[in-house]
Amino acid sequence: MDASRLSVKKTRLWSRLMDMATIGEIPLQGSRRLALSSDDQRGRDLFLSWAEDRGFSHVHDQIGNLFVRREGRDKAAKPLVMGSHLDTQPNGGRFDGVVGVLAGFEVLETLEDHSIETAQPIEVAVWTNEEGARFHPAMMGSGVHCGIQSLVEALTAKDMAGISVRDEVMRNGYLDGPLPGSHAIDKYIELHIEQGPVLEDHNKTIGIVTGGQGIRWYELTILGDETHAGPVPMDRRRDPVPTLARIIDLVQAVGRTNEQARSTIGRIEAAPGSMNVVPGRISISVDLRHPDDDVLLAMHGWLQSGIVTLNENQKGVQTTFREIWHSPAVHFDAALIALARERAGVRGYPTLDIVSGAGHDAFNLARIVPTTMVFVPCRDGVSHNEREYAEPEHVSAGSNVLLDMVLALALPAPRP
Amino acid sequence: MDASRLSVKKTRLWSRLMDMATIGEIPLQGSRRLALSSDDQRGRDLFLSWAEDRGFSHVHDQIGNLFVRREGRDKAAKPLVMGSHLDTQPNGGRFDGVVGVLAGFEVLETLEDHSIETAQPIEVAVWTNEEGARFHPAMMGSGVHCGIQSLVEALTAKDMAGISVRDEVMRNGYLDGPLPGSHAIDKYIELHIEQGPVLEDHNKTIGIVTGGQGIRWYELTILGDETHAGPVPMDRRRDPVPTLARIIDLVQAVGRTNEQARSTIGRIEAAPGSMNVVPGRISISVDLRHPDDDVLLAMHGWLQSGIVTLNENQKGVQTTFREIWHSPAVHFDAALIALARERAGVRGYPTLDIVSGAGHDAFNLARIVPTTMVFVPCRDGVSHNEREYAEPEHVSAGSNVLLDMVLALALPAPRP
Repeated sequence: MDASRLSVKKTRLWSRLMDMATIGEIPLQGSRRLALSSDDQRGRDLFLSWAEDRGFSHVHDQIGNLFVRREGRDKAAKPLVMGSHLDTQPNGGRFDGVVGVLAGFEVLETLEDHSIETAQPIEVAVWTNEEGARFHPAMMGSGVHCGIQSLVEALTAKDMAGISVRDEVMRNGYLDGPLPGSHAIDKYIELHIEQGPVLEDHNKTIGIVTGGQGIRWYELTILGDETHAGPVPMDRRRDPVPTLARIIDLVQAVGRTNEQARSTIGRIEAAPGSMNVVPGRISISVDLRHPDDDVLLAMHGWLQSGIVTLNENQKGVQTTFREIWHSPAVHFDAALIALARERAGVRGYPTLDIVSGAGHDAFNLARIVPTTMVFVPCRDGVSHNEREYAEPEHVSAGSNVLLDMVLALALPAPRP
Repeated sequence: MDASRLSVKKTRLWSRLMDMATIGEIPLQGSRRLALSSDDQRGRDLFLSWAEDRGFSHVHDQIGNLFVRREGRDKAAKPLVMGSHLDTQPNGGRFDGVVGVLAGFEVLETLEDHSIETAQPIEVAVWTNEEGARFHPAMMGSGVHCGIQSLVEALTAKDMAGISVRDEVMRNGYLDGPLPGSHAIDKYIELHIEQGPVLEDHNKTIGIVTGGQGIRWYELTILGDETHAGPVPMDRRRDPVPTLARIIDLVQAVGRTNEQARSTIGRIEAAPGSMNVVPGRISISVDLRHPDDDVLLAMHGWLQSGIVTLNENQKGVQTTFREIWHSPAVHFDAALIALARERAGVRGYPTLDIVSGAGHDAFNLARIVPTTMVFVPCRDGVSHNEREYAEPEHVSAGSNVLLDMVLALALPAPRP
């Protein structure tokens, strides 16, 4: 048969997505499968039952990462791995993560349907606790696999009820597995919904993800003087609120450095927070992002010097500035990016190069193996919400790109 | 003797102030006598012991207001009343309220020292729960006396521990008293620290208080759309934060209508308040004040129309606007104001006409009897704080103004 004529089965893939969504189902077509919870485990069990039905083997590791495997001609070769995660946010949707796992599985099924032999094994990974909603930090399973976080640190993380990752990993029977990271990977490809509106806005089906934004987080404190709202004239106050307005304008300007820049003030807290008291102190968070680390550094400098200038101009109110986290930009593998773009083009799918704004397991994998991602649109750019939706047409298009990439990378060389 | 040569005894007054400050003393020279607490009661008991020592009688009412009385020639005449409160904020100072009570008492003592007979009785009132720190609302005792709040409503108010005003009034033995308001008053004069920096700034000793600011309170909610800080481009966000900056600028401008205007944003809350999430909603409070109700109404209109304009210009982000409280401006009695100004002038004290920014029991009294207030400076305008301080010289100057006003109002007509 001609492998170049293969396509995934759209209806099978969609029906598996909808079946998975019945596990931990919540109103408004949402899903709640918090990492390592019983619902998460039931979702994984359902997935593994499908794998078993198709004769695929699987392994797990001590943090609960799963690898479902379709064997290749060379059983000793490192596998080509697709995947994502099955855990969700507390009020999550049916697509974030699940699409990447089930699209990968659909590729395995399609290969199996047509008895196509690959040179190396092909696998689908289910990474543990990508969302970070129950246990911090997010992207835990892939982080431990890639040596970015230690296993001990991950196992001791606790949820709000005091239950540890170790408790749950033991309960779910993963603790007897091999050490995370011992399961070697050749290359990694992850399909995901975009979680933003860009593909939809541009009427594109496939996002060719070139990498992830660099991120810098700051805590700013604007210090004034707490005073009574009545007796103290406006000019005698050391009110931090007008300075907050100037900082908001500054952060907005920094976030409009160019089209790819982002700036967000997510937390704002005024103390003491009483109607008739001028606040003595306002604390805010700032999140700056850019796919180019040099531009991000320039944004950092702009923010910092803007605050120094504010401090010089407003003697009575002073703002402290503290960077609390820095995650450099992620750059995916050039050959894999080019392959994704080329394969999508052959299919006739409209593509757009895009940088991921959200974090993904692929960011961790990119540090140790050639990695890339493929995005499909999601309605109104909404995710982490029951309203999350992706078109069946788009999900299967993304899966076909995965399939074509696997065929291009893993078909055996023609026999002499 | 010539009554026009009388003065209060500065050292006695100061030593009574310092003695009272030992009741409920807290570090940094602060005082904590929460309304109707045991410490508040001990303060009242100390005060009444001084009254007893001087042969003054006293009565209380069912809300715990106290009236210490020096009899006049006409025992049936309504008393001329001075006074203020002895309760404090949780981290209060030694002067707020106490100065008004003990200055009034010093006037009584000075009259007694010199055996001066007044035509009408002269009294010092101690109003219950002026601060409102333990039981809401503030100015409770005077509010009930003046019919602004019902007795039943006041008695059912509870503190954070679930203890009611009624519980405490009963424990302290006040519930057998007459109904609040049944104790008739002729005129009311209250000495108080300014609680602002204006007298100090102008190097004046006596503030001639012409009234109190009108106050309007608002709750504003800025509604946007909660989105991920990464994937969504700046222009695609419905971020309420930039609108917050415009509203801060608007409220600042409204508060600078003229020198007597005040505007304060005391509460700012962004939800959900996560570092990497664009807030979906920001709630803020606005407090507008002006001594002229017409100007305050104009400020209200400016704020409201400013928000309407913002809503028209920013389709994606809308701000709701709700007035939650309105307290009209207070105007003190013209004759009493003139008398205070005249008497202070004769003493050679530098005076300044001033409008009270904070609320006082005198605001309630002004609704039922001729009332005025006299202010003395407090250091750096600080109050509701252990750092609160008033100069002995200023406290006795204010007391001398009270003394002179009492002598002018209450000396019997010369016998024929």
